[in-house]
Amino acid sequence: MSNNPPAHSTAPLGIAIIGLGGAVATTAVAGSLLLRKGLQRPVGLPLAEFDHLDLVDYANLRFTGWDLYQDDLYQAAAHHKVLDREQLEAVREELSAMYPLPAIRKESYCEGVVNGADSTESHRELIATIQQQIADFGREISGNVVVINLASTESALDLTEEKYQSIAAFEEALDGGHACISPAMLYAYACITSGTPYGNFTPSVAADVPALRMLAAERNVPIAGKDGKTGQTFLKTVVAPALRARALEVDGWFSTNILGNRDGEALRKPKSLLNKINTKGDVLTSCLGYEVENHVVKINYYKPRGDNKEAWDNIDVTGFLGHPMQIKVNFLCKDSILAAPLALEIARCLDLARRKGRGGVAESLGVFFKAPMTPDGGAPNHNFTEQQIELLRWLEELNVLEPVQETAAV
Amino acid sequence: MSNNPPAHSTAPLGIAIIGLGGAVATTAVAGSLLLRKGLQRPVGLPLAEFDHLDLVDYANLRFTGWDLYQDDLYQAAAHHKVLDREQLEAVREELSAMYPLPAIRKESYCEGVVNGADSTESHRELIATIQQQIADFGREISGNVVVINLASTESALDLTEEKYQSIAAFEEALDGGHACISPAMLYAYACITSGTPYGNFTPSVAADVPALRMLAAERNVPIAGKDGKTGQTFLKTVVAPALRARALEVDGWFSTNILGNRDGEALRKPKSLLNKINTKGDVLTSCLGYEVENHVVKINYYKPRGDNKEAWDNIDVTGFLGHPMQIKVNFLCKDSILAAPLALEIARCLDLARRKGRGGVAESLGVFFKAPMTPDGGAPNHNFTEQQIELLRWLEELNVLEPVQETAAV
Amino acid sequence: MSNNPPAHSTAPLGIAIIGLGGAVATTAVAGSLLLRKGLQRPVGLPLAEFDHLDLVDYANLRFTGWDLYQDDLYQAAAHHKVLDREQLEAVREELSAMYPLPAIRKESYCEGVVNGADSTESHRELIATIQQQIADFGREISGNVVVINLASTESALDLTEEKYQSIAAFEEALDGGHACISPAMLYAYACITSGTPYGNFTPSVAADVPALRMLAAERNVPIAGKDGKTGQTFLKTVVAPALRARALEVDGWFSTNILGNRDGEALRKPKSLLNKINTKGDVLTSCLGYEVENHVVKINYYKPRGDNKEAWDNIDVTGFLGHPMQIKVNFLCKDSILAAPLALEIARCLDLARRKGRGGVAESLGVFFKAPMTPDGGAPNHNFTEQQIELLRWLEELNVLEPVQETAAV
Amino acid sequence: MSNNPPAHSTAPLGIAIIGLGGAVATTAVAGSLLLRKGLQRPVGLPLAEFDHLDLVDYANLRFTGWDLYQDDLYQAAAHHKVLDREQLEAVREELSAMYPLPAIRKESYCEGVVNGADSTESHRELIATIQQQIADFGREISGNVVVINLASTESALDLTEEKYQSIAAFEEALDGGHACISPAMLYAYACITSGTPYGNFTPSVAADVPALRMLAAERNVPIAGKDGKTGQTFLKTVVAPALRARALEVDGWFSTNILGNRDGEALRKPKSLLNKINTKGDVLTSCLGYEVENHVVKINYYKPRGDNKEAWDNIDVTGFLGHPMQIKVNFLCKDSILAAPLALEIARCLDLARRKGRGGVAESLGVFFKAPMTPDGGAPNHNFTEQQIELLRWLEELNVLEPVQETAAV
Repeated sequence: MSNNPPAHSTAPLGIAIIGLGGAVATTAVAGSLLLRKGLQRPVGLPLAEFDHLDLVDYANLRFTGWDLYQDDLYQAAAHHKVLDREQLEAVREELSAMYPLPAIRKESYCEGVVNGADSTESHRELIATIQQQIADFGREISGNVVVINLASTESALDLTEEKYQSIAAFEEALDGGHACISPAMLYAYACITSGTPYGNFTPSVAADVPALRMLAAERNVPIAGKDGKTGQTFLKTVVAPALRARALEVDGWFSTNILGNRDGEALRKPKSLLNKINTKGDVLTSCLGYEVENHVVKINYYKPRGDNKEAWDNIDVTGFLGHPMQIKVNFLCKDSILAAPLALEIARCLDLARRKGRGGVAESLGVFFKAPMTPDGGAPNHNFTEQQIELLRWLEELNVLEPVQETAAV
Repeated sequence: MSNNPPAHSTAPLGIAIIGLGGAVATTAVAGSLLLRKGLQRPVGLPLAEFDHLDLVDYANLRFTGWDLYQDDLYQAAAHHKVLDREQLEAVREELSAMYPLPAIRKESYCEGVVNGADSTESHRELIATIQQQIADFGREISGNVVVINLASTESALDLTEEKYQSIAAFEEALDGGHACISPAMLYAYACITSGTPYGNFTPSVAADVPALRMLAAERNVPIAGKDGKTGQTFLKTVVAPALRARALEVDGWFSTNILGNRDGEALRKPKSLLNKINTKGDVLTSCLGYEVENHVVKINYYKPRGDNKEAWDNIDVTGFLGHPMQIKVNFLCKDSILAAPLALEIARCLDLARRKGRGGVAESLGVFFKAPMTPDGGAPNHNFTEQQIELLRWLEELNVLEPVQETAAV
Repeated sequence: MSNNPPAHSTAPLGIAIIGLGGAVATTAVAGSLLLRKGLQRPVGLPLAEFDHLDLVDYANLRFTGWDLYQDDLYQAAAHHKVLDREQLEAVREELSAMYPLPAIRKESYCEGVVNGADSTESHRELIATIQQQIADFGREISGNVVVINLASTESALDLTEEKYQSIAAFEEALDGGHACISPAMLYAYACITSGTPYGNFTPSVAADVPALRMLAAERNVPIAGKDGKTGQTFLKTVVAPALRARALEVDGWFSTNILGNRDGEALRKPKSLLNKINTKGDVLTSCLGYEVENHVVKINYYKPRGDNKEAWDNIDVTGFLGHPMQIKVNFLCKDSILAAPLALEIARCLDLARRKGRGGVAESLGVFFKAPMTPDGGAPNHNFTEQQIELLRWLEELNVLEPVQETAAV
Repeated sequence: MSNNPPAHSTAPLGIAIIGLGGAVATTAVAGSLLLRKGLQRPVGLPLAEFDHLDLVDYANLRFTGWDLYQDDLYQAAAHHKVLDREQLEAVREELSAMYPLPAIRKESYCEGVVNGADSTESHRELIATIQQQIADFGREISGNVVVINLASTESALDLTEEKYQSIAAFEEALDGGHACISPAMLYAYACITSGTPYGNFTPSVAADVPALRMLAAERNVPIAGKDGKTGQTFLKTVVAPALRARALEVDGWFSTNILGNRDGEALRKPKSLLNKINTKGDVLTSCLGYEVENHVVKINYYKPRGDNKEAWDNIDVTGFLGHPMQIKVNFLCKDSILAAPLALEIARCLDLARRKGRGGVAESLGVFFKAPMTPDGGAPNHNFTEQQIELLRWLEELNVLEPVQETAAV
């Protein structure tokens, strides 16, 4: 990369997706192809309007990834029923030729998602395989690679577990093949130790344990997460700060949603649901400046909707002289349609961070996440508008930075 | 006022309200009394948490005003049914002792609001009376006075009328007793020419005609307006910018609301409704950056609700790959409960501006208005969060300014 | 037809539709073809489960009709975007071969619906043409014919007009070519005087003027109408009687809906809208037993939805000890999907009535209409459940009746 | 009672309420007093308009009852915040003088409702006490007595338990002090064996076990239940049959509600919630004629609302040609305001049944219940309109019956 960077990086960017056959991933891949063919405008892509930034162009994105299911991407996308038939047919050829690599499988972490035997290799062998696959992909496309986690939510973990608290303890657990190391952590570790940026769009615990946060800082590899902020939480973090600005006190916030896709099904497992609820939890306190005593979040599997998630929020507020008012928000959204473009933007931003030499937790990407990671594990800011301002500030800052030397070589 | 200003101005601030017997005004007056007595916390008052600012303390607000109805304020407040009976009784004595001064009445501008004969005095006589009343009030309370317009919406006007375009033409029309000078303009003119800050919380045309904007700048008198941003438009300007940040395209926005108070009744007159719709009109273009072809706003008089306004918005958005989604927002609010505290804050801010020597259109108060005035009459920014940031910036700036000499004397 | 009627009439039934190219009509025709081909189950057809009744089988329905637009039905259906592409393609061949006959056109009755010159023939000539077209169609299919009006709403009329009050006056107006005779009336008159049952699914004034009601009774020709009860009014007449059964008093009922199809566009004309509002008007009084003071109905043209109508109702009720409660109903429906099957059922019922010798206003079909006609023009019953019970009673009664002699020959 | 019965029974009717201090009970008692004083019209009382029926007049109702809490009824009613302060004050004197009798307490059945020690008497002793209290009350008011269960929901039971299946087995369990006999059953048994009609407004298992149904039939004592059909289920059984009448197929029905009163708190106990969900379960199958695969019911404790329950239903339906539509119903109701008048009507009807000699399960009262009892325990009809028609038919039938001799003497 020269001293005079072009408006866009012209090298391809490879995105390796954990959960490549899922609804979000297939939507991202198909959507990317549709954009490249000029069959769609870049609607829903938050950074599309900033075409002067040194982000990789959408047309230069390439994909690979892993999945527990081995269907080709056309079959997978058809199964999820997110795309219109016309859209699907327009990229049928390309999708049909793409097959996921086999993902790491540990029944205890993905109960009920898919049948099959657990991976038998050791932790270190699995990591080596992942790193090999990433390196092969980079070579194949002659470009950088970032990894994005879009897999189904794993079971919740005990985050106080001592093995997560230091790099040394974590690596000891790795070496010992300890069961507390989840598949998501294996991917994250493989990325960090091979210099590959890693973004976690799921609620699963991965690079957010202290050991991996520290490792990413040490190795200067950008990581970001977690749990994409798409529908209900997005609007919650938009509305709550405005209520605060008007000094309207929130007495209660009841959020329920219904969804019927594979993610919804995974969330029927209490332990996966726990992870999900946890990442939705403390956003109100951050946005309002006080704790809402009655903040209830209920996620329901409801089959008729498929990928068409629906959220219903009821907000009880107290106004001047103690008078109660209510706000109800009903969001009929499409989960993967909201998520897929954010996943693409996260990948583009992580790649930019890498090229500019900004490793560690990319806190400035918080606007994309329900539970934004912070460098020191502290409480993040959830206020949507403030997060958006921070993102734009960061992009501007990075854009005028000289790229670091190491990112020049691909 | 010394070189060492106290955290709050300790002199009283008089608020003279046009429409003193209305629902918003009586709520503001009663609420102010309840706060002073410590019977209510300052919920719903956006600037209450900033008690280090040099704004007049809520406890130091005093009230007078004009109305077409001559009921005492206890009777008026009881009629509006905004306050609980307990709240009303707690300030019965004070409210019962307060009577509105007779307001200027011109049937052609307030069709159907109240029966009675038109004011017979000349424009100049009416202005002189208003100025006398303001001066008397200031003397009585030994404090500054600001005027806030909370009267029912007047009929729409032809804003291209040449008499509104320059100070000279306007004053000629005043001298000639021309019918194009509305009651709202007479109050505004009386304020500006007597150095009294003027805030317009209604959709009526008043200080926003070029002649009066120029006059306020020339005389260095702070003015602000117009049409308080309370419920539906407040949320619209919160949600729309967030949709833009996510690059979700708005295909249509249908806003309807039902309200049953005296304001709602006034809006049954097509010409008053027109004023109201006008001030709701172009907020989306400002918040989104493009014009929404299908932006429909329907306001309905619906008696059962009284002051309990209800808004229902349906937003059609297009996301990634052209997929449609819907957001519906149902706001069960209380018009006067939302409006009254904003009116108090506007008065406090205008007073601050005057003390700091900042006359002309107080553009930084835009967050309080549906149709924010700008110094040159240009298109305002409607983005709620950006307006809020601007307000806080302005307050900080004013707060560190030395007060100007002239404001010390009352 | 023998003395031993089969479970279903085996002769075909021809349905001649006024407005054949419209969204409802093309949905009805295409849907009928899809059913006949076994590509769809009879969902949404209220009488489908009563297959023991002597109604014409869905498979035996045939179609013709008139329209102001002359597109073939495939083009017309594609334009309306009601059917899925797959559904449309499955019947493309049949639809492509069907063209509407030119409809009567009078600009003053269909302002803005379509450009073109008014029909120049005399009233009597137009009637003769219609009757010839009906007779030709019956011969072509060797079956009975009924006419169903599915055209865009015509302008409202002064129903007190003397020419509508007696058969003689009406026919005198016909002979004189009087402008008070609308196109809808010409079709209705042509039907009644040729023994063809006539159903009016639109809000237009047609067979409901006294003259035509009397004529239908005199000639013993079944007629029914008017204005199909599809979405919002359907639910209103379901919920209101239940509130009455619980003695919950309705203080106000605010109904708004948004729709973006050609019907919605026609309703932008104030005179057409008036017709629509009129037929929605007095249902509550009928269902509740008292007049609701605050019953507001607002219909809005809102383009983004196309045929996907959306209704939002807010109901204010008072319960025990005067305590207020609210019910809100949000119906995201598809206008033509709801309407088309009802139009088919009305046709089948009118045909049955004719075969059983039951002429005049078919009051028992009231469940299908927003403004059910009664034999003497009196107030109808709008209670949905009672209407449904009446329909089933009537069908049972007709089903055990011997068919009358005259209906045997076709 | 003479051969010429008056329009209303003039003797008082005593209503002994289990759960007298609860929100529903105190609302019923206070409401009854307000009606008697002429301070309220009989809104929300479904049988108020049938004043020609031989039901006891509302003015002749008298109250007593049992509760785990011993507050006087004024204190209890004030705590529940259902009534306005004015309403409460108007009957303060009467309410303050009423104290509940101590209710039977078994921790295992009412976990968490209230602290205290379990009742120590034997089952037979408890029954004897209840019967004595009922008899005393009847003597005191010189009138008949019915018992209505309005207590908090008890824990769910294993209904296949052999001891519930025959009178002999049940009585053996009673004699043996078996723990499977719940407090609710003790009250029900005490009523049935003393000839006192018993209505169960709660989801608790009581007279609906086979043994007690048989006993009520044998002793000819009217019983009715269970679980009052007030808000969400009421509307569900209104809307679902209408969808069936239109042949709209229900693919899914998601019902959630939020409530914050003591009942809501009791429902936080999984075993009590189970009882509640059970009684909400099979209504759709009955109303639609087929089983809805995706029928989800979620009840949530949400404190800000207090007694103001709110229900949100989303209904996914398929219409003609397989097109999906959605109906959303949002009911902002007041639990006790809906329930209290129904409890009064059930008491009046049970009293009427007794006077007319109609013992056993009063199946015709099904319109009042979520899980209507049937004489043989078979599946009930849940269709609201059909239930209402049955109620009116039954009342008409009973009203023309001669009263049986035994009811004349009190």
